[in-house]
Parts: sequence; C-alpha cells; structure tokens
Amino acid sequence: MDAPRLRAEFPVLARIAYLNAGTDGPLPAAAVAAAIGELGREVGEGRAQAHFQRNTELKDALRGEYAGLLGADAADVALTTCTTEGIAQTLGGLALGKGDEIITSDEEHPGLLGALSALRELHGVSIRTVPLERVADAVDSRTTLVACSHVGWMSGSFAPAELADVAVPVLLDGAQGVGAVPVDVLALGCDAYAGPGQKWLCGPDGTGMLYIRGELRERLAISRRGYSNLQDAMSGLDARLHDDARSLDCASMNAETLACALAATRVLASAGWEEVHGRARDLAQHLCERLTEIGREPAPRGPGTLVSFPSQDPEGERALLADRGIVLRNIPGRPWLRASVGAWNDAEDIDRLLAALSG
Amino acid sequence: MDAPRLRAEFPVLARIAYLNAGTDGPLPAAAVAAAIGELGREVGEGRAQAHFQRNTELKDALRGEYAGLLGADAADVALTTCTTEGIAQTLGGLALGKGDEIITSDEEHPGLLGALSALRELHGVSIRTVPLERVADAVDSRTTLVACSHVGWMSGSFAPAELADVAVPVLLDGAQGVGAVPVDVLALGCDAYAGPGQKWLCGPDGTGMLYIRGELRERLAISRRGYSNLQDAMSGLDARLHDDARSLDCASMNAETLACALAATRVLASAGWEEVHGRARDLAQHLCERLTEIGREPAPRGPGTLVSFPSQDPEGERALLADRGIVLRNIPGRPWLRASVGAWNDAEDIDRLLAALSG
Repeated sequence: MDAPRLRAEFPVLARIAYLNAGTDGPLPAAAVAAAIGELGREVGEGRAQAHFQRNTELKDALRGEYAGLLGADAADVALTTCTTEGIAQTLGGLALGKGDEIITSDEEHPGLLGALSALRELHGVSIRTVPLERVADAVDSRTTLVACSHVGWMSGSFAPAELADVAVPVLLDGAQGVGAVPVDVLALGCDAYAGPGQKWLCGPDGTGMLYIRGELRERLAISRRGYSNLQDAMSGLDARLHDDARSLDCASMNAETLACALAATRVLASAGWEEVHGRARDLAQHLCERLTEIGREPAPRGPGTLVSFPSQDPEGERALLADRGIVLRNIPGRPWLRASVGAWNDAEDIDRLLAALSG
Repeated sequence: MDAPRLRAEFPVLARIAYLNAGTDGPLPAAAVAAAIGELGREVGEGRAQAHFQRNTELKDALRGEYAGLLGADAADVALTTCTTEGIAQTLGGLALGKGDEIITSDEEHPGLLGALSALRELHGVSIRTVPLERVADAVDSRTTLVACSHVGWMSGSFAPAELADVAVPVLLDGAQGVGAVPVDVLALGCDAYAGPGQKWLCGPDGTGMLYIRGELRERLAISRRGYSNLQDAMSGLDARLHDDARSLDCASMNAETLACALAATRVLASAGWEEVHGRARDLAQHLCERLTEIGREPAPRGPGTLVSFPSQDPEGERALLADRGIVLRNIPGRPWLRASVGAWNDAEDIDRLLAALSG
C-alpha cells in the first residue's frame, strides 16, 4: 500500500493535520466499520453462545497481531485495556516491599508513576529516578527491577540498548513504542512490555497489550481471576489460572472494541510494518529539520516518531494551532509542544504546521 | 412507555424469544446508535482535547445512572469493565491473610470464586461455604467478611435480608441483581456491591459498576493508579488518588462503549424502573406457573427474573431450543435450563418456550 492509499484510510486527515497519535491515533474507516459490523450482529442476533465464540476468536486474532508486532509468542501476550493496566498487573503482582528498589527515569508517564507510587506508599519500595539514558548504568546491587519507557513520552528519547544486559528484570512502558518504532522484546531483553492499542496502532481507546516472559509471569500473585483467566472456570474454588498470559487478560472486552482494534492494526499491517515505521521516522526527521530552520530546534530525541519543540506559550499555541486544524499537544511541566508523526501523515501536514508556526 | 413500545426498542425480539439477559441482555437499537454516533465523531474529528472531555462527560453521566439505580451517591460508585473486576478490586485490596475467614455461598459464579480462590491460595485466607440462605446465620467470631450473590445465578435465590444486620463487611455480587430487581445498597446493608452493565441493563459487554462505602474504600490498598484514578496525575510520584470511588475506576473505557451503556440504561429508565422490575417479576412468575403445569417445576427461587427448571439433557435441549429461535442457557453442573425473563419479553415469548418444551 503506497503512502497516499494508506493516508486515505483515515478520514480525519482529509481536513485536519492530525499529529496526535502519541495521545490517540487517527481511527481508520475500516476499524469503525468493523465495530459497527459487530454491533449490528449483536443487536440483531442477541448475545449467546455464538457471540462468546466470536469474542474468543477476536481475542485470539488480536493477540496474534500484537504478538507478531512485539516479536513474542502469543502465549506470552495478555490483552489489556491500556498500558497502565499491564504495568499495574506486573508491578502490583510482584510482592515487592521494604529493601526492594526500582530504578525509573525522569521522563515517565502517570501510567507508570502511579503504580510506582503505590509500591512506595503501600509497601515501602524505594524508587530511584535517573535520566532515561542512565537507567542501565544505574543498576547496582540494591536494584530489584528497572521500570521505564521504551520511548519517553515527553521528548521521544529511547531507553538505552544496554538495558538488554542488566541483571535484574526490566519492565518497559511501550506507550510510545509499539506501532511507532520496531519492537523486538527479545532483542530489547525486557521481561515485560506494556503497550497501548489506541495510540500508534490506531485502535479504539480501552485496548492494549502486556508481553510478559513466562518466568516473570510465574512469579506474579494474580488476584483478579475471572472467567477468561481460568482454564476450568466451573471448578469453583479449585479452578486454575491459564498457564499462559491469558491469566492476565482484562476481565472483559466487547467484540466491537476487539474488532475495531484488530481492523485498525491490520490496516497498518497491510501497508507493511517496515514501511510504516520507516516512513514515520523519515517524516519526523524532516519535521525536525524544518523546525530547526525556523529556530525551534526540537529537544534531544531518538530515531522515532515524537518531535517535541519549544514554545513560549505551549497551551496557548496548541489551542491556536487546533483552531487552524492542526492537532498536537503540549507537554505539562515543560515548555514544549509535541508533534506525533505517523506513516499516515504527509509533507503537507508538516507544511501546514510550519506555516502556522511561522505565521 | 408501555410494554409493546419498550419491546420494540430491542430488534432481536422481532425474531427470537430471547431469554438470556442473565448472560447478556438484548441490546436496544438506541444503544447501538449511540455507539455509532461516538465512532463517527472520533473517525471524523480525531481524538484530542474535546474527545477526552466527552469521555469524562459520558463517565459522569453513566456513573450517575448507575448510582441512581443502586440508591448510592455517585461518589461511591466506580466504573468497571464487569462484575468480576469490582469484586477483585475489593477482595484483592483488603490485605487479608491467615486468620481471616470469608463466608460465601454454594451458588457462586467464577467471577467471585476466582477472587476467593486467589485469597486462599496466595494469602491463606479461609473460605467457608454455606447455602445462600444461611450466609447471615453463619457469621461468627471467626468471620472477617461475607461475600456472596445478591441473587444467585443458578437458581435465582436471594441473599437473606438478615445480611443487613451482620457485624462484618458484606460484599454482594450483583450480577443478577441490579437492573433485574430493585437494589438499595443502604437497605441491603452491604459495604460493596459489584454489578454488570451488559446483563439486566442491556448495555455492551465490558461495562459494570462497583458501589463501595467510603469506610471500606479507605481500607483498600489500590495498586492500579492510572490517569483517571489520580486527582493530580501530573504530580509524578506524589500524585494522590481521587478521594472517592474514581480511585477504583477501570483504567480506560472508550466513548462508544460508555455511550452505548448509557443509552441502554436510559431506554429502561424511560420505561420506569418500577415498571421494568414489576413486569419482569410478574412474567417470570407466570413462566413458573406454566412450567409447573407441564411437570417442570422450577427450582426454589426468589421474587426475581431467573427461572431455572429441570431438563433431562440441558445442553441438548438448549441447542434444540436455540434452533427454534428460543435463547436461554443451561447451568453447568446442575440438571437445569435457566430462563432470564425481562420487561422486554412478553407472554408470546413464554408461549413459544412452553410450546417447544411440550412439543
């Protein structure tokens, strides 16, 4: 699928220079059609045995797509409602306490910091914060775990490759990773990778994934055990958890949301992931050069899709740009606007942003 | 709204004698239209600031509807993805261990039993199982908590009124309660009440509610802390949980699912809850009498909407009925078929079922 054809899959791009996938991706028309198809089936046929079989098929298919993207076995991938949920399931299940120390970075999102603050407040776990590029170097004999971004949501910096070699488990927050840049959980050497379905995979809100290595999963105390987490749900108090990542699946997700996420991911897959990643990376680089030309040199970043650049009035300028049909976000606490550049964007979106910034 | 008008809101009923709301209710056309409306907005406008504001408005509105139904303050109601999630959040957060004993009944669903088995396996909590009508009498000095159904999913029995007077906290599984029968959490005297959106409220899968009394909520160790659970999410590790039940909200739910649940609930509300409850109760009673006439006397039950009756081949007979456009379920482990009777059903649905059972 060439660039104009991919772009045409996203109705919002006909009108808006949508540079906001780091928050929520543009939805493809095919994803909405898939959701509507499921809703039509449910309203007409009701929801009984065939419905639950359909739900399971959709979960299997979506899990397979996510696993493929992560370079993981489907058995090691749980379906979650969002990145936050996978992080909380992992960190909350490890029975950490006083004497444990987690290293994190100074560029983390509330979705990770919330779970870390809970460990500190409830269990006395020590949290050490260092710059993202230092998280591997900082590991020492006190360290229990590293939990940080794969790609930082503020600047677009990447976690250091040296994380693959540290001696403790690593949990990566992949909110700005999966879909945006190539991910290979084995090469990254991480033990858990939590990601969203609604950002760079252009799916609906309320979707996500958790890759978790079997050895780490087996250490987790899993207290939420619903029908879909159990291999023999009708065995009462003796029911056993699935012996794979389904034990961590979110308790319930509807068919319309699953189908929407699946169709969105497949739109991108059909364009070719290498194409999708390469085109976004190159266009983001192009944006960086254009911004530098007008004296708005972006913050240091990795070779990804986020471009954060200075603004004297981030909130005001964001609103002004929105009025002109250019959608991006400001970063709370930093004097930055952040553009999220996807393979669905084109040079004209960049031109519109530059013209508005210069005008 | 009179009975035929309410019935006309549910397209599936034009063709199918749908008696399966105890699993998943029939979806009203208005609920699907509401979901499609949100999807249309998202695909055309993208998902930025106005989108998240819309999501918050929908959450507030849905929380308000649920709270009204439960006789609770909205501040004490969390939005969940299902009954199971609310149960797990409550039981998993109480830091119970050896020496604690929970009383439950012999008619519980995996959604509750899963969380109880986790407490037993991971923390050595003792679980004592008694008949549902005995859960209040069974409380003694060893008892830490009672966790059982408001209305049992197998027989339709009700938890005893005496639960309101026991000296320990009570968690009710309201999967077959809220929407089916009147619920007043204060009169029930429960400290937590977990319920679904997709059963008797005819909403989408992946929706639910947790009422939790402030005193019990304040005892919970809440380890999942996402953006929507925090009152000052941008305060990093110092961010504080909302000081109401939003601290327990599921991490993410999309606008289409919220709007679908809200519209479904409002269809029923517009018919009047007293009408909805009374009509379903009377029609279920009518079904009981008809079944008794043909020698299929239902299992002992309460004055609700579930009617479980004997079958010599529950799975086979369920399939046979489905072939004739009559949808209900069999109960695993019991020689029963279970009909779920709602205000949307009519005497003709009952006639069809009886004719098929007799024929």
